[in-house]
Amino acid sequence: MSNVLFIGYKNYSSWSLRPWLVLRWGGIPFEERVLRLDQPGYGRQEIAEVKAVSPNGTVPALDADGTTIWDSLAIAEWAAEQVAPGVLWPEDSALRAQARSATCEMHAGFAAVRRDLSMNLHRRLDAQPDWPDDTRRALARIDELWRGLRERHGHLGPWLFGRRSIADAFFTPVATRLRTYAVPVSAIATAYRDTLLSDPDFVAWEADAVPDSWDASAIQ
Amino acid sequence: MSNVLFIGYKNYSSWSLRPWLVLRWGGIPFEERVLRLDQPGYGRQEIAEVKAVSPNGTVPALDADGTTIWDSLAIAEWAAEQVAPGVLWPEDSALRAQARSATCEMHAGFAAVRRDLSMNLHRRLDAQPDWPDDTRRALARIDELWRGLRERHGHLGPWLFGRRSIADAFFTPVATRLRTYAVPVSAIATAYRDTLLSDPDFVAWEADAVPDSWDASAIQ
Repeated sequence: MSNVLFIGYKNYSSWSLRPWLVLRWGGIPFEERVLRLDQPGYGRQEIAEVKAVSPNGTVPALDADGTTIWDSLAIAEWAAEQVAPGVLWPEDSALRAQARSATCEMHAGFAAVRRDLSMNLHRRLDAQPDWPDDTRRALARIDELWRGLRERHGHLGPWLFGRRSIADAFFTPVATRLRTYAVPVSAIATAYRDTLLSDPDFVAWEADAVPDSWDASAIQ
Repeated sequence: MSNVLFIGYKNYSSWSLRPWLVLRWGGIPFEERVLRLDQPGYGRQEIAEVKAVSPNGTVPALDADGTTIWDSLAIAEWAAEQVAPGVLWPEDSALRAQARSATCEMHAGFAAVRRDLSMNLHRRLDAQPDWPDDTRRALARIDELWRGLRERHGHLGPWLFGRRSIADAFFTPVATRLRTYAVPVSAIATAYRDTLLSDPDFVAWEADAVPDSWDASAIQ
């Protein structure tokens, strides 16, 4: 069996980080292939390359032994099916439904956060930009969501639903945004943010995330 | 066991239609409760009511015997777990991964279509509005996606992946938009659109979808 995960540039591609973590957490072997989308200098050849594996022309995409899976959450669900119950989703049915709700809310929502707090692992801002109301509401919702889940399930472990799950992978890019943009959140949400940022697999990703030469904001 | 699905007003709520169809297609009993969000006159009492079942304040949300599931795709995945394999997702693993990719692409994407072609079941336009490029590209992608899947899997049945699946439920609101806004698509995509629009459960939903008094566009 041979799995190849096509991802964007590691400093910027929040969508790619999620299934990459899920595959690592599931212990599923894969090769990675970095395609530099969304950047100046991205050319026709790379676009053709992506289209060959991803019908909508976006990364991440997984070639799972010949089957193309072209969405981050679909890759995560596929991964969950390759491993034992409880490894990537909670084993309890009610807890699993809630973990999927939180993951799906992230997958389809928070457009204002994506727009105004783009992921840039090497960037650090001292002061918050003057964000519009929808961005501030979305950040408050993230704080509320994390706090509520941590208060309810904290006795099960340091993650959102006890054991580390796909939901945590989906919120890891958010944790980096809170750090980059110095967003103040509640103490319990801050602690969870730090749990995500100190995960060894995330730290391994981060070590590979070099800012690109065109990105002045990421170069100190 | 008691399941209550909280949904928006049937003429307009594309997000609500999806899990409603999935529960019907799965033969899972549920009561429905219509909450009139996103409309003038929607008041504090209704907002409090939604917050009680849906932590992010949106519909659809499912109260599944006391467990709150607050996202359309999470409800669909829960439903798939309640029924036999093959009923709501394809039984074949590779086909299921592709069905999830298409469903997830719809769940997280097509923002321009949501913005410019809002669902309004009773509305019919004779001529297309002058849509911007991103909207036209998104509509072309839907045509391409449907055509490609129907060409590949058409021998299995009239749906995207052979038997009716969650992917078809997620594209049903799109089918109504193509009809409302008179969007020309390929012959094979048009035939699939009509398959969705003639599904008996969709027809039952449509029969309940009365335009609201404030909506001049939906009243002939």
